[in-house]
Amino acid sequence: MTDRDSSRTLPHPATEEIRLEGVLHALSDPVRLSIVRDLAASADDLSCSHFDLPVTKSTTTHHFRVLRESGVVRQAYRGTTKLNALREEDLNTLFPGLLASILTSAQAEAARLGAGA
Amino acid sequence: MTDRDSSRTLPHPATEEIRLEGVLHALSDPVRLSIVRDLAASADDLSCSHFDLPVTKSTTTHHFRVLRESGVVRQAYRGTTKLNALREEDLNTLFPGLLASILTSAQAEAARLGAGA
Repeated sequence: MTDRDSSRTLPHPATEEIRLEGVLHALSDPVRLSIVRDLAASADDLSCSHFDLPVTKSTTTHHFRVLRESGVVRQAYRGTTKLNALREEDLNTLFPGLLASILTSAQAEAARLGAGA
Repeated sequence: MTDRDSSRTLPHPATEEIRLEGVLHALSDPVRLSIVRDLAASADDLSCSHFDLPVTKSTTTHHFRVLRESGVVRQAYRGTTKLNALREEDLNTLFPGLLASILTSAQAEAARLGAGA
């Protein structure tokens, strides 16, 4: 995230404002959980349009906002594209091991249900 | 509550019906999370009336139902009392380490925010 346009920054909670309940709520939706799994598996930040989600564009935007406002992802504009990154370091500072545990559980569940990915 | 005949058992998901999203949703509410923390800290099953919650009785009933239907707690009648137990073994079978990780995170957050207990 290099190109900065201060007029287009999006609001994020500071690390100390992140709440466990908000993180769990954000991850309790299958679409949002799949976004987080993709981000965790990617070496790069990913644009919203990268994700092929079974929901409308406005619902996609909603899901990303929930993830951002709960402190799970950081979103920044690069040109007209919103790039998304997991806030792994912040989450691990507050809740050591939690994100890894949820991701492992999600993978186990997907394998168990034969849902792949 | 559909108490029928002499059998007053309540419906529970089988272990394999428990879903990660449902568990995370159940734990994303502060009241439900506090119930689960109390159950985890107790050697015994606890009645609903054991919990001193800042909500009405009907809301309390709702929270316990969400916990039961998501597979987080098991509820059983003993006389007229409903006893609650964490389904730790079932959850650990499906999602090893997840519950412990969430409970540790909840404790860290409570300590951080000075919310005690």
